[in-house]
Order: sequence, then C-alpha cells, then structure tokens
Amino acid sequence: MEIKKTQHSKLDTIDPNNSPFGVNISDHMLICEYENGQWGKPVIMPYGGMNYSPALMAIHYGQAIFEGMKAYKDKNNDVFLFRPEKNFERFNKSAERLAMPPITKEIFLEGLYALIDLDRDWVPTKEGSSLYIRPTMFASEEMFSARISNKYTFAIMTSPANSYYDKPLKIKIENHYTRAVSGGVGFTKCAGNYGASFYPTLLANQQGFDQIIWTDSQEHKYFEESGTMNVMVRIGDIIYTPPVSNTILNGVTRDSLINVARHNKIEVREERISVDSIVNAYQQGTLKEIFGCGTAVVVNRYSHVGYNDNIMELPTLKDEESYAVLLKKQLVGIQTNELDDPFGWRIKI
Amino acid sequence: MEIKKTQHSKLDTIDPNNSPFGVNISDHMLICEYENGQWGKPVIMPYGGMNYSPALMAIHYGQAIFEGMKAYKDKNNDVFLFRPEKNFERFNKSAERLAMPPITKEIFLEGLYALIDLDRDWVPTKEGSSLYIRPTMFASEEMFSARISNKYTFAIMTSPANSYYDKPLKIKIENHYTRAVSGGVGFTKCAGNYGASFYPTLLANQQGFDQIIWTDSQEHKYFEESGTMNVMVRIGDIIYTPPVSNTILNGVTRDSLINVARHNKIEVREERISVDSIVNAYQQGTLKEIFGCGTAVVVNRYSHVGYNDNIMELPTLKDEESYAVLLKKQLVGIQTNELDDPFGWRIKI
Ligand SMILES: Cc1ncc(COP(=O)(O)O)c(C=O)c1O
Ligand SMILES: Cc1ncc(COP(=O)(O)O)c(C=O)c1O
Repeated sequence: MEIKKTQHSKLDTIDPNNSPFGVNISDHMLICEYENGQWGKPVIMPYGGMNYSPALMAIHYGQAIFEGMKAYKDKNNDVFLFRPEKNFERFNKSAERLAMPPITKEIFLEGLYALIDLDRDWVPTKEGSSLYIRPTMFASEEMFSARISNKYTFAIMTSPANSYYDKPLKIKIENHYTRAVSGGVGFTKCAGNYGASFYPTLLANQQGFDQIIWTDSQEHKYFEESGTMNVMVRIGDIIYTPPVSNTILNGVTRDSLINVARHNKIEVREERISVDSIVNAYQQGTLKEIFGCGTAVVVNRYSHVGYNDNIMELPTLKDEESYAVLLKKQLVGIQTNELDDPFGWRIKI
Repeated sequence: MEIKKTQHSKLDTIDPNNSPFGVNISDHMLICEYENGQWGKPVIMPYGGMNYSPALMAIHYGQAIFEGMKAYKDKNNDVFLFRPEKNFERFNKSAERLAMPPITKEIFLEGLYALIDLDRDWVPTKEGSSLYIRPTMFASEEMFSARISNKYTFAIMTSPANSYYDKPLKIKIENHYTRAVSGGVGFTKCAGNYGASFYPTLLANQQGFDQIIWTDSQEHKYFEESGTMNVMVRIGDIIYTPPVSNTILNGVTRDSLINVARHNKIEVREERISVDSIVNAYQQGTLKEIFGCGTAVVVNRYSHVGYNDNIMELPTLKDEESYAVLLKKQLVGIQTNELDDPFGWRIKI
C-alpha cells in the first residue's frame, strides 16, 4: 500500500476532543479505483478534493454505498476497532444489490487498519467520543447513460465525533411514507435510502417529533426501524426487535446488543412488532422502553411515541432499571476496553 | 448571467453527428450554487472537474435529482426545445420530495436557453439525433451527518446523442423486485431510483431480456413502467397506460403521446393494467402492441414479453399498422420542426 503523508496536519487547528459529529475530516483518506474489471492499488493520501465533474455517475444514478463504524481510545491511548468484519461483509452485500463490484478483504480491512494507525492522533480520548469511520464506494464514470458504471472509487475517510447527547426523543410512528419495500434496497446502506427519508423526517420534525419509526410498506402496521437505527421494544422484561429482512438493515449494534442482553440473561425475541401490540402493552402498563440502536449513538431512548393523533408517554425509568442504559454501558465498555470482551469483538490497532 | 467561454472547443475532435448517447459532454456547463438559504448567480463555464471530495453529501445520502430533455435542429439549422417548462416543473417536484430547495424559473429556463444558444454547434443535424440535456441538482456539503444538506449545486450539461436504434425489445414482467412504493420516491427523478434498478435489470439481461416491466409493489399484478420509460399497451384499437401516481413518473413523452394520439382520434385510457388482462388479451388475439416511451428513445416497441416461465410473442405489425410508429413519427415531426405544432410545444432558441 502506498502512503503519501500530508505536510500540513490539520491537528494544529482542530481539537478531536471538541468536534461535532462528521464535520472535521481527518488528515488522510484511503482511495482505491476500480477500472477495466479490477481494483487498482490502494493509496493513502491527504484528504481533499478530487477532480470529479458534475457528470459523476454516482450523483445521477445513486450507485453509491457506505458504511459507518468507529475507532475508540482507551486510557493507555491504545486504539481499538469494533467488529470491522461485519461492516466489510455488509458493504459487499450492499455492493451486490447495487450492481457494484465487491471490494476485497485486503483493501477494506488492511486499508482501514493502516489508515487508522496513521491518523491515530485523530482518535479522541474524551469519554463517549470516538473516531467515526466512513468507508464508501461510488460510481465514478462521467457520462449520462442510466446504466451500470464501469468505474468506481472506494474511499475511507474518518472524522472525530463527540458523544451524541442521547436525550430521550419524541418519535412518530409513520403511517404514510415508506423507507423500504420488499424487492427493494432497504437492507443495504445505499445512498438513495437516506435522501428519500429526509422529507418525511422533516415533516415529522415540523409536527414536533425528533424521528420516525418506519413501518412496513404494505399496511404501516409493523415496526421496521427508527430513523437510521434499528428499533428495540421492551415489554415487561422481554426485549422485542424485528427480525432482519430485505427491508431492514442488519445493524452491527443490533446484533451486538442482542448478544450482550442474552449474556445478561435478558430474553430477546426477534419477532415482528405490531403497532397494535405496542398500544395494547401501553394500555396495560407493560410497555417499559422503546429505543433505537446504531453505531452513531449506540442507544437512543424514546420518551414519547406518536401514532395517528395520539401520544404514548413512556415511563421514566431510573438508570438502574433501564435495559437501554445497561446494554449501552456494557457495549461501550467492550468497545473502549473498559470491560472484558467475552465475544472477541475488539481489535487492537 | 456570467458567461466564461472556453478557449479550446472540443468540436475540433468530436463530431456531434457521430456520438453515442451521453459520452461526449459539450464545451460548456451552467453552474449555480445554493448556500445560506439562497441561490447564487448562475455562471456558464467550460465543462470540467470541480473540486469535490469523496465526502460530497450527494454521494453518501443520494440527495440528488436530475432531468432529461433534448434540443433538435431543423433543416435551416434552427434549434428547438420541447416543452422545457414540463421538465422545470417536474424538477421542482423531485426537489420537494428530496427536501431540496426549489430552483427558480429564471435560473432553470433562462440558463438553459443561454447554454443551448452558446453550444448550438453541438446540436447534431443527422436525422434522429439530438442534443441531450441534463439538468441536475445535488447536495454539495462535505460532511458525514445523515441530514438535509445546507449546500447544493445546480448544473446543466449537454451531450450530442445519436438516434437510439429502436429494435423491438424482449421485456420481462418483474414479479420479485420493486422499483417504487407508495409513500416512496418513485414519482421523482432522484438518483436512488436508478441505481436500485440496475441489479434487477442485470438479472433480467442474464435471463435473455433487454428490459423490465415494473409492477406494483404489493402484488406484482399491475403494470407500472418499463425500464426507465412509461409503458403503453394497445389492445384492439385502444391504448391503455397506467395513470400517473406516486409510484409512476409523470413522463413528458407519455403526456405528449396521449395528446398526439387523441389528436389522431385514437382512444387512450389512463387505467391500471393488470398482468391478467394482458395475458387474456394475448390469448384472445387482441393484444397488438406494447411499447415504452421516454425522452431518450421516444418510443420503443416490445416483441416478446416474459412472465413467470412463459413468453408472449407480440404480433409483428407493419409500420403503417402500428400506433407506436405513427405516434413516434408525429411526435418527432413536431420536435424537429418538420410538422405543424398544433399544441404549441416547440420553443425556438
Ligand atoms: C437504516 C439504518 N438502520 C440501522 C443502522 C444501524 O446499523 P449499525 O448498528 O451497524 O450502525 C444504520 C446505520 O447506522 C442505518 O443506516
Ligand atoms: C423512470 C422513468 N420513467 C419514465 C420516463 C420518461 O419520462 P420523459 O418522457 O419525461 O422522458 C423517465 C425518463 O426518461 C424515467 O426515468
């Protein structure tokens, strides 16, 4: 792998410990180009502009996918990744559905390790903060036919991220707009899924909600995901979460929390969750927690759930009563090398 | 409007009359940037690379839309556009659904006229050829939060296009993959719709079909569109086409053909078309033509229609028996100033 180091680190002016999510991009990026049916040599180079024109096919046809993962620093300034193979595998699943070439494990993982190693000073040390990592692949031919591109760029960029303040959110059960449909691309991290969700989310914001719980496209009766997170519901002492499907992203956090919960002898059921069953549980007083989970925030609790014109107000649990708090603490502990890792998830860089 | 002319026209090396669709981009492009809640001044400049990094939000979140239209030259070398206001209106409908700011009529239409005027030598003269025009708008902030962008680029680029050879195609009625869903973005020309269709189309190609007829997401029982075209079916002497909806693009060609057909006293019904009714008509011998329609090819006839494991072979009509041929000839005649334009659709530049 070729490495071209920057002569002008931005660390003189940017403090990784004081950096809002996704805004400051670290000194280096990894770039690898695909052409004539094969991947070229990956190069780590200073982050910056490329010479793309507005005819870039990714912009016109959305043949573009990404991943999101994090690097963490422990108290000794050692740097760790969390289950990066999961992101690698999901990346190639997205690529297949978007008719893009798979990336090799060498380019993705070894490129990732080399990049994080080089920019390790960008990994923040403050509690709850981390280095957000963004692998992406996109069509890089420049022409106007609506067809599969012959050229692609694979890139990995990183950005220091403060901890999200996970204040309990007001969330709306969506009964009109649709995020994903059977036979579509909902199970992938392709660009189009996100742009399509902005307008419905904006409308929900205007109605006083922070986020949307997406429901199935056929009847809007079953929970799918919440915002850009997977969703979990606690009724009594059981956690329910929809099984992954071709409309639900197979979240790494979701999978990890299920494992951590079972390790704690908490029962988790991967089952469809109907809106009716939620309303029932609410009326019977057994609906205890609803939370979203994903790499960016780990866990985000919901305080209010809107449905049609009703609002369900969830009970305010103490931290020591909340499964969301317990699971988050344990997962973050594993990620940041504060707790044992019985699952073998941590990778030291 | 500021105009920065190129010093090096590519017309020395590129022959617009001999140019495959979408490959050679003309000398100039129009660029207008949106920031701080408003559009800046549009500038016409030499087409070429901008300084976007791989963190361009359009690439990650698919907040990106486009239009497709054409300029035509008549025998006197006069240049004409066709119903550009329709594309302007549809562009802003797409923008709204993708949570992007509307573009003004001045920037879109006057920018378009000025650009086509400047690059009028790029409009080919050969019969059936034209200058393809690609307006686009995309999120141009560079950061990693999955949220509505604060910056956008509006661009118009053009490219000379040979006539598509419209050999009758083999088409497959899709019964698994889905292009559009109620509550989604199917009625817009957003980037994500296209990338999501490539893989299903590739599978159809591998099965020996040229294109897909998309069906409804719920039951895969009703026709929606064909490839990136609207679809029309002739049973007996009546043309059927699905009504536009929130899963069907409101095609300019579709609307124009409906008008031309009715002008010819051909009955057109905007009705849902079930696959069953097609199979029925085929068995009764009343299924005469199925064709797609769109700006790129105008009309494309289908010779074979695959459904499950069956193939329906459509009758081979003589040109003078075919509605598809009649309507195409009249529409192209209007577009290229060879026929009267009773509808007032042509605009001379
Ligand atoms: C749509 C969607 N669902 C769920 C998730 C959660 O996945 P993960 O836990 O792998 O971050 C994400 C990504 O963060 C997402 O974009
Ligand atoms: C999905 C889709 N349907 C239909 C059409 C036809 O629309 P128009 O006739 O305006 O080109 C297009 C664009 O060409 C399209 O992309």
